[in-house]
Parts: sequence; C-alpha cells; structure tokens
Amino acid sequence: LKHLFIGGEGTLGIITAAVLRLFPKPTASETAFLAVPSPAAAVELLAAMRGRLGEQITAFELLQRSVIEFVLVGVPGYSEPLEQPSPWYVLVEVAGQGEPGSLADPFAEALSDAMEAGLVTDAAIAASGAQAKRYWKMREDTAIAQNVIGASIKHDVSVPLSRIAEFLTRANAALEAAYPGVRTCAFGHVGDGNLHYNPMQPVAWEGAKFKAERDAINRIVHDLVIELGGSISAEHGIGRLRLAENEHYKSDVEKDLMRTVKRALDPANIMNPGKMVRV
Amino acid sequence: LKHLFIGGEGTLGIITAAVLRLFPKPTASETAFLAVPSPAAAVELLAAMRGRLGEQITAFELLQRSVIEFVLVGVPGYSEPLEQPSPWYVLVEVAGQGEPGSLADPFAEALSDAMEAGLVTDAAIAASGAQAKRYWKMREDTAIAQNVIGASIKHDVSVPLSRIAEFLTRANAALEAAYPGVRTCAFGHVGDGNLHYNPMQPVAWEGAKFKAERDAINRIVHDLVIELGGSISAEHGIGRLRLAENEHYKSDVEKDLMRTVKRALDPANIMNPGKMVRV
Repeated sequence: LKHLFIGGEGTLGIITAAVLRLFPKPTASETAFLAVPSPAAAVELLAAMRGRLGEQITAFELLQRSVIEFVLVGVPGYSEPLEQPSPWYVLVEVAGQGEPGSLADPFAEALSDAMEAGLVTDAAIAASGAQAKRYWKMREDTAIAQNVIGASIKHDVSVPLSRIAEFLTRANAALEAAYPGVRTCAFGHVGDGNLHYNPMQPVAWEGAKFKAERDAINRIVHDLVIELGGSISAEHGIGRLRLAENEHYKSDVEKDLMRTVKRALDPANIMNPGKMVRV
Repeated sequence: LKHLFIGGEGTLGIITAAVLRLFPKPTASETAFLAVPSPAAAVELLAAMRGRLGEQITAFELLQRSVIEFVLVGVPGYSEPLEQPSPWYVLVEVAGQGEPGSLADPFAEALSDAMEAGLVTDAAIAASGAQAKRYWKMREDTAIAQNVIGASIKHDVSVPLSRIAEFLTRANAALEAAYPGVRTCAFGHVGDGNLHYNPMQPVAWEGAKFKAERDAINRIVHDLVIELGGSISAEHGIGRLRLAENEHYKSDVEKDLMRTVKRALDPANIMNPGKMVRV
C-alpha cells in the first residue's frame, strides 16, 4: 500500500507522516566538468567509471552545448567552462567516506584512462569545493537561462540507458527536420536514464508561435520515447499537464486499472480530482 | 501500479515480465568474522563503519552465540570461528570497485579503531576468498543446523535500527521468563533492520510440545515488534502462514484498503486466493 500512495500524486489519499532513512554525509568528494564527443561516449564513460568507482559516482549530468550557450548568454557572470567548445559535456561527481582527498587519485586515473580511450576530450577537475559549487550553479541556472533566452517546450522523459544516445540523435534530427532553426537542448541524469529535453524556439520566431506547436512537438518526442521503451514522465509526475499524454500512450488495461483503483479508494472523487487519472 | 503488483504476492495479478538493472561486479572485497559484546555494540559498529566505508558495506550479519553452537553441533566440519566464545558475532563484508586488495587497509583500520572503542572484542579477517566463503557457508548452514537440533518457532521481523538492541534484549528476556530453558536464537541483516528470530525448544522438551506453543510465542514476539514500530513480515511476505497475524495487527482502515484493492482488481477472487488478504 505504501508505494501505491507514494506514486498516487495525492489522488488516492494524503500522506501525513514519513520516516526517513539517513545516510552518512560523504567526507570525500571530487567534481569535474568534462567535454565528451557524443551522448554515446557519455553512456560508455558512465559504464567505465562505474566499473572503477562503483556507487561512489553520485552525479553524472549530460549537457548539450546549447545548454551552456544559453547560460553564457542568459545569466551574467559565467565564462566558458573549458578552453574549446564541445558538442556535449558531462558534469560528474564522486563522493564517499574516507579521508578528504582520498578519491582524488582514483578519480583522476579514471578520467585519464577515459581520455586515452577517446571518451573524454577535455576535463577540468574542480580544485576546490567552491569551484565544484560554481559548476553546479551553472548546471542549475540552466532553467533561468532557458526562460531568458526564449520559449521552450519542456519534456521530462526517461529511456533505458542503452537507448539514450539513439533517443537524442533521433529526437534532435526529427525536430530539426520539422522545425528548421529549432535549438535542441537536452540535459539530464544519465545514471537514471532521465532526460530533460527542452527544444527552444528558432531565433527568428515569436515565442507564442513556438508555444502553439506544443502538442505537435510533444507527439514527436513522446512517440520516440515510447518506441524506445521509455516513460513520458520521469521525475515530475503526470498531474494535469501530462494527463492527456498519459491517456494517449497508456494501454486500455492500464487505464482501466488506474481508474478502478482510484474509484475503489476515492469513490467520491475528492482526492486531488482531475490529476493523473480521469474517472 | 508496478509496486502494487510487486507487493501483492500474486493476489492482484501475475507478473509476466521484468527488466533488471545491472551493477558492475565488485573487483575488491574483504570479509571478517567479529566478536561483539552486544547487539547495541553491533548497531554502533555498523554506524561507525558506514561513516568510514559508506555503501561499500555490502553485508552486516548479526549472529547470536546460540546460532554458532547449533552449527558446531548440528553440521559436521565446523570449528569455533574465533578463539574465545562471544555472546554475539557479526559477519561483515565490504565490496567495491578498484584494485583487488584496495579495501584491505581501510577495512583493517576501521576494525582496529572499533576494537579500541570496545565495539569489537576479537576479529578474524578472511585471508582468502575461500576463507570468506567458509564464513558465509557457516552463516547459511544455520537453517540446516536449526532443523537438526530441534523444534524452533520462526519469525521474520524488522524493527527500526535504533530499536534492534532493545528488541533482542526484551524478546529474549520475555521468552526466557515464559519458557525456562528456551534457547533464544537471533540472526539477521542489521543494515535493513531485518531479524530472523527463531527460539528453539528447551533441551528437555518434546519438539511437538514446543511447536504447540507457536501462537503464544508469536504473540510475545510480534507484540514487541509492533510496540517498537516494526513489521511482522520483513522478507518473506504474509502468504497463508502470517495471514491471521497480519489481520490481528493491521488497523481496520488498512485491512479495508487491502480488501478494497483486492476486490477491485480481482472481483472473482481467482488470483492466489486465500493468501495475504481474505475477502
């Protein structure tokens, strides 16, 4: 029953208490900003680094070049993170217990081997906690930057790790074919297969004109996600925004099950009505 | 919906396909058999070791002295794991990526500090993979040993980590008061708060006489588990064996919810009927 309510988005009941399991705060960590030639290289890099550093890899964020450009233009105070521009980047963090600095050597060795293997073309290892924080701030300011730069259509999707590269290649190509000049923009948590895929209006377009394409762009992106065995809602739930999309892609059996559970637990439809499932 | 079916014990439907996430096989690991003075020391030891080795601690098995005695007597080929008998033991394993042997120093240092702090009174670190396997075989042969030695009443419970020591102290005392000569026997996975709590018949008793006390012994053990905020079914589900106990302890609201979901998804009551929930 617990997980039913966790995933229910408040449509089955209200969670009034929770018990949290605590983990020890890491005492050693390293952060690096990497240039990678492609999403395929990033996925291979993650596998190689997990083989070396295991579950100590606590973040592995893939960033398309456009994301960095939006931040450089849209938010004051940033400069190029690496000497040369790269089509793709990875912001990687390792963390564990042990003496501060104890992960520095294994981390640097893993990155050095990855450069020799051609998975990484340039790397900047944060020399201090302050520098690591600046890298993360740049990653986090991408949301602000997108709003400054123009209109974007946001997607919160996941695909199996083995399909991430194919998804990004095909989604970017499909959108560029349908909307010449569109600025594709992808970033996400490769370890989970979660991607934020937020195409940005062509420079010459009005924002409203691009926003009006939302349903058509959703269809292009989400059709591909479903074809590749992924989910159209990775982190942010269904709510009202994805309700119609969810109904479009879920099978009749799944929809019937969701409605049956909803009706059984909330016969008067008073728990967060109109979200996630329509009864 | 996924988690609803995972936890449904087949009473809501049949899982016909599953996707597994793979993790890299550890390349470095260490195992040790430890004498600890008490369950409280074991819990403190786990916290101390997690602070040093984090999620690289992949097993942390608490064993009451009686468990070792049952194996020594009941299964041929074993000798005392440590020089002196100890009231409690911990079988601990760390595993991670990196060079084979790279965890040896941090593991030995953590154990050495734990001995200085009085959390560990003796330790044998496995000198080879074969020796580590023998320690694990001894742990796994406890089930065989219990069957050879006599009749036991098995419980598969969990309590919050912070209540493990209190649970074991109070449960052992309550059973010894109610059944003089009973041989208490606890072992489990401290990291999850999961305990196998399997009191064994007094030496002088007939097995059948002890088995007949099952409901009364269940009540003593499970009342304490519930009082301490735990669960009467940690790993092995409810099935038919724990059905009445589950109904005894669950609130009316919980039971109504379970029945409502069962009736909604399986109105004809054909999915694993009579298990987990009675409709």
